[in-house]
Amino acid sequence: MLLSKLFTKTSKDTVADADSINADLLVRSGFVNKTMAGVYSYLPLGLRVLKKIEQIVREEMNAIDGQEIVMSAFAPKEYWEKAGRWDNTVFESLFHVPAAGDKEYALNPTHEEVVVPLVKNFVQSYKDLPFYTYQIQTKFRNEKRAKSGILRGREFLMKDLYSFHRDGDDLDKYYERAQGAYWKIMERLGLGEISYLTYATGGSFSKYSHEYQVVLPQGEDTIYISEDAEKKGKRIAVNSEIYEEGKTVCPETGGNAFRKASASEAANIFKLGTKFSEPFDLMFTDDKGKRHPIIMGCYGIGISRLMGIIAEAFADDSGLVWPASVAPAAAHIIPLAKDEKEESFKKAKKLYEDLTKKGVECLFDDRLSDAVGSRMADADLMGVPKRLVISAKSIDGGGVEVKDRASGDVTIEDFKKVFSLLVTSS
Amino acid sequence: MLLSKLFTKTSKDTVADADSINADLLVRSGFVNKTMAGVYSYLPLGLRVLKKIEQIVREEMNAIDGQEIVMSAFAPKEYWEKAGRWDNTVFESLFHVPAAGDKEYALNPTHEEVVVPLVKNFVQSYKDLPFYTYQIQTKFRNEKRAKSGILRGREFLMKDLYSFHRDGDDLDKYYERAQGAYWKIMERLGLGEISYLTYATGGSFSKYSHEYQVVLPQGEDTIYISEDAEKKGKRIAVNSEIYEEGKTVCPETGGNAFRKASASEAANIFKLGTKFSEPFDLMFTDDKGKRHPIIMGCYGIGISRLMGIIAEAFADDSGLVWPASVAPAAAHIIPLAKDEKEESFKKAKKLYEDLTKKGVECLFDDRLSDAVGSRMADADLMGVPKRLVISAKSIDGGGVEVKDRASGDVTIEDFKKVFSLLVTSS
Repeated sequence: MLLSKLFTKTSKDTVADADSINADLLVRSGFVNKTMAGVYSYLPLGLRVLKKIEQIVREEMNAIDGQEIVMSAFAPKEYWEKAGRWDNTVFESLFHVPAAGDKEYALNPTHEEVVVPLVKNFVQSYKDLPFYTYQIQTKFRNEKRAKSGILRGREFLMKDLYSFHRDGDDLDKYYERAQGAYWKIMERLGLGEISYLTYATGGSFSKYSHEYQVVLPQGEDTIYISEDAEKKGKRIAVNSEIYEEGKTVCPETGGNAFRKASASEAANIFKLGTKFSEPFDLMFTDDKGKRHPIIMGCYGIGISRLMGIIAEAFADDSGLVWPASVAPAAAHIIPLAKDEKEESFKKAKKLYEDLTKKGVECLFDDRLSDAVGSRMADADLMGVPKRLVISAKSIDGGGVEVKDRASGDVTIEDFKKVFSLLVTSS
Repeated sequence: MLLSKLFTKTSKDTVADADSINADLLVRSGFVNKTMAGVYSYLPLGLRVLKKIEQIVREEMNAIDGQEIVMSAFAPKEYWEKAGRWDNTVFESLFHVPAAGDKEYALNPTHEEVVVPLVKNFVQSYKDLPFYTYQIQTKFRNEKRAKSGILRGREFLMKDLYSFHRDGDDLDKYYERAQGAYWKIMERLGLGEISYLTYATGGSFSKYSHEYQVVLPQGEDTIYISEDAEKKGKRIAVNSEIYEEGKTVCPETGGNAFRKASASEAANIFKLGTKFSEPFDLMFTDDKGKRHPIIMGCYGIGISRLMGIIAEAFADDSGLVWPASVAPAAAHIIPLAKDEKEESFKKAKKLYEDLTKKGVECLFDDRLSDAVGSRMADADLMGVPKRLVISAKSIDGGGVEVKDRASGDVTIEDFKKVFSLLVTSS
């Protein structure tokens, strides 16, 4: 990607109405654009990050036998009434959309009301169970106050998986597989070391639900990290909503030593039991011909929210710092030349073209007439893992000046080594 | 994909409330599910088709330098008011969504009102022009009557590209490039031979807009195909909205011989001129420091609609017939065996696994206890290009019974040939 062609531009100034670190940095770097409070568009570089998060989540859902679908954004009012959640006193943030013919539609903030009638077309017998289906899709919430940039929006991208079982044991088994998949996602996103499986309010079917909370100074939640669990190499916490000082013990270790932390919820998983299968009469027939309601689980993860969490977790004073797995590019190449005839430009361009041919995504800063300082600042702000500066000086010194965005380490490497390093790590 | 694991199932019966061939076949085959009139969910096989159409469109948009973004589904009322299109007397099908704080949002049916304020952040000078940005995103229309299955929905997937120019000449040049890209798309989707570049109502900035109409018996539009153009190897038509019997001539050839046809609109492109840049004050400064409004073009194509068009264009009495470029799989493998110990099952499974390893997508019908007739009918209904039946008889006869879904031709081929044929064509 040539930066001279990219239609977005960075901005030096803090965004006037930014409500969070992520909004400020993502808007300034040209990764997202705010349409209105809580409503964002994803620009070329931001969309690349979003798609990479999406793909990591997709791969891990496929690995636990999730079948991908995309459900409708709209649902008829009748479905939400059937589940008892149409009324805004029950589900406050549900958008009611007036439609032609004196109708009203729900603009779905979650999809139990769509997936249950959908799968009802296909399930009759215990032989059809279990199965798991998920989507990556835009959801809507009528938030009174949108805040925290893309962390808490009025429209946002979610992955939601629903599982269907003949009994609670089968659900329990899958719930554990899903936990494994969620840990893999958090690790692949670079968040493994600061994420906690957090016990939270359950429902009528199970004592707890579980959240994946990421420790962030600006996090909107408060969690209590189990220090006993930590000693055993486990990252377990309890959400403040169920924590009682001096009474609560860690549900996994029984220990009572906790450390308070601010955190942001990236994901949550629930055992729904028959909460939705009963009102929709989603039943199966067992091997003796008897009918039972299907047991369900649901497994959410915020895709756009994760982008905001990653932005906040790793950013520094100079800008964004993307983990390699979700970075919009592997390398940000800056030739320091006055014109395209100079050797440094030619060598930089060749490196860019060679890497691109090998499928390594690169940003190439061909804006030669811009000030060197602002081009360097842009690289820091955009947060690509490796900055490669090629100048007469770097060539004299042995090749390419490689700066690691996260550590700040700078080395000079020869062209071949830089090329093979990037090709093998991509 | 193992059909025993796929959670969707086919249905023999015509769908009671299907309003079109595409809805009937796509629902019966388990490709889509109707949430309500005009609102569909895309199930595993249907989503594969949709994503392939999406990817073909994406590749052709990238080839004409389109920069991909994803814009918000919501826009503030104020933006739609600024462009003069908020009122339902002006834009009848615009959803007005009541939101917290006595606000109303637009649920965008098109994105001029979002893209123009968005790009305004990034354009100042003639040096920033031209550029092109597009998205593939869900749109909403408050249709009084939804009909024709996924051809005309209340929510649907669109690609919309917007181009930004300093003058009309530059727009004209890009408009022609876009036409080339659109022809490539129609050809890659297998629709090239039945698509017509159709002249339709223009606006204040240009005499005509252009549509890509696909001839379909059930098509909702009427077009007049230029027979003179056809003789010159061009597929040109005039929309009935601007056609006058005995007066209209083909805008490209000047000929007056036309043939009437029913067609379905797959895409439309417009020269917007300054229609949106003026109200939003989207200006650029020329090389003499003078300010001018930016000249715009817009280029739409219906992704989910194309899926419906392709379904209708090629279906036969037995079901769907997908062109290879968008089929949910390249091959549908059916072992005819009583149990998994039989040679025919083992050979079929090995072929499935070998093809899968090579990246060839296959459906594998491992539902051995189902009736042979219904498994064969499923293959026809789902419409994968090649059906591979492996039985004791086919093995005796030399290997695999290969049926071409489109032509109906059946041959017996040895395993190696079938394997290499599918690997090289994928």
